[in-house]
Amino acid sequence: MTRHELISLIRRKRSFLCIGLDTDLKKIPQHLLNSEDPIFEFNKAIIDATIDLTIAYKPNFAFYESLGEQGWKSLTRTIQYLNHAYRGEVFTIADAKRGDIGNTSTQYARAMFDPDTSGMNFDAVTVAPYMGEDSVKPFLEFEGKWAILLALTSNKGSDDFQMLHSTENSRCFYEEVLHTSQSWGDSSNMMYVVGATKAENLKDIRKIVPDHFLLIPGVGAQGGSLEEVALHGLNKDCGLIVNSSRSIIYASAGMDFAENARQEAKKLQLQMAGILTPQT
Amino acid sequence: MTRHELISLIRRKRSFLCIGLDTDLKKIPQHLLNSEDPIFEFNKAIIDATIDLTIAYKPNFAFYESLGEQGWKSLTRTIQYLNHAYRGEVFTIADAKRGDIGNTSTQYARAMFDPDTSGMNFDAVTVAPYMGEDSVKPFLEFEGKWAILLALTSNKGSDDFQMLHSTENSRCFYEEVLHTSQSWGDSSNMMYVVGATKAENLKDIRKIVPDHFLLIPGVGAQGGSLEEVALHGLNKDCGLIVNSSRSIIYASAGMDFAENARQEAKKLQLQMAGILTPQT
Repeated sequence: MTRHELISLIRRKRSFLCIGLDTDLKKIPQHLLNSEDPIFEFNKAIIDATIDLTIAYKPNFAFYESLGEQGWKSLTRTIQYLNHAYRGEVFTIADAKRGDIGNTSTQYARAMFDPDTSGMNFDAVTVAPYMGEDSVKPFLEFEGKWAILLALTSNKGSDDFQMLHSTENSRCFYEEVLHTSQSWGDSSNMMYVVGATKAENLKDIRKIVPDHFLLIPGVGAQGGSLEEVALHGLNKDCGLIVNSSRSIIYASAGMDFAENARQEAKKLQLQMAGILTPQT
Repeated sequence: MTRHELISLIRRKRSFLCIGLDTDLKKIPQHLLNSEDPIFEFNKAIIDATIDLTIAYKPNFAFYESLGEQGWKSLTRTIQYLNHAYRGEVFTIADAKRGDIGNTSTQYARAMFDPDTSGMNFDAVTVAPYMGEDSVKPFLEFEGKWAILLALTSNKGSDDFQMLHSTENSRCFYEEVLHTSQSWGDSSNMMYVVGATKAENLKDIRKIVPDHFLLIPGVGAQGGSLEEVALHGLNKDCGLIVNSSRSIIYASAGMDFAENARQEAKKLQLQMAGILTPQT
């Protein structure tokens, strides 16, 4: 999906919500456990109930991998369902935090972006930047695809390394990631992860990357505030994709789980529509 | 596998070789493509031909993921084969470079270490440290399992961030990873990745982590030197696991591929036996 198409989606749906599919067998409604593929059935129901309110879905790979072969199958069915039932209607993010030496990153990129070999056709993948340029570039070589680099993450451990300052230029390490990666790609094929719990840093981040989209996890269960994120992070094209996972998909564990997820998503979408009003 | 068992393996086999299973459908012998699961058949033949020469196997997850569901199945069969046919005879490393917020890293740890849910039972997993303590600790909570943190990698992009110095303590960022992570685990459940192409840094690295095992990729196709690695990296318990992938597993693309792989592995094992002599 191109940047233009993504911006059009946001304008049309009046939303910059991403729903995280952190689907866990222990948390989904019990009645689904009798179906042949409970994880897929849960995802399909959540997707069908929220597709008009959200501009992106983000399966968290760890939850699928923990179930082994069957989990990978449920994941593949989920992205194939999104590709076939809702092509062009939603942006898809492989939340996989990949990154390795060049020839290996190329294989990871094929896994996420090349349906002819892997069966999966995501629009974007989250990438860990620790290994530098040649670990990221292979993800940028696919037309219409995106790499979403970890910059400042929402967790406590983000203080351990991301917030250290470098002697060479007195920037924080995460700011160095923002700066250095500017030469690897541009705002049409790169985004950055910035945790909603670090909203106070968004003002400075916008000085470095005024045009790039930012993927913001941490609203909801992790405690981040949508208002604060929008205040400091919004740009002329919106420039934000705000993710919520658990507080939407596990809004209820009953028969009405999809309807409850829709209600939670609707609350966020309405807030977002209000935030977008002056701009669109 | 415990540290004691790993050291015993090294002494018994007179080897500290790890064979990287970067198995690629485009590179394996053509005659295997007629089998029901070519990737697994290739891995099984390589393993059977080299098990007495190597102390570890390291499947590179990207190569399996690029083949989608079928690739994940071949990967699962490979680790299950290692677990059943060679239990206790070899150390197994999931080269997956994972790492995410705590509850997600827990799911990744289950994927690698908990056969009851994922079908996979590796001894160790490679972990990207960018997200800090809570992204790594879940991997350390499994008895007898190991997290292998990226420190100084073998690729060109390692200069981009790993070699920057931090103002707070004037150490390189990769040295900061070595220092800070000392409080997360110890030499019985943590190792570090240090590229063979960065052997000149091993002397300083050994000052920070004298006892830890180091996983050293980059010997062979990437150009690193075994002698130099051993000179600066060896400790009293060996303390090294040196990986070679392509130069062993693709030594031949003919019917004799496994025998040729054995010959290449044997060359390295003999060099290693010579290096280990004064110590064991």
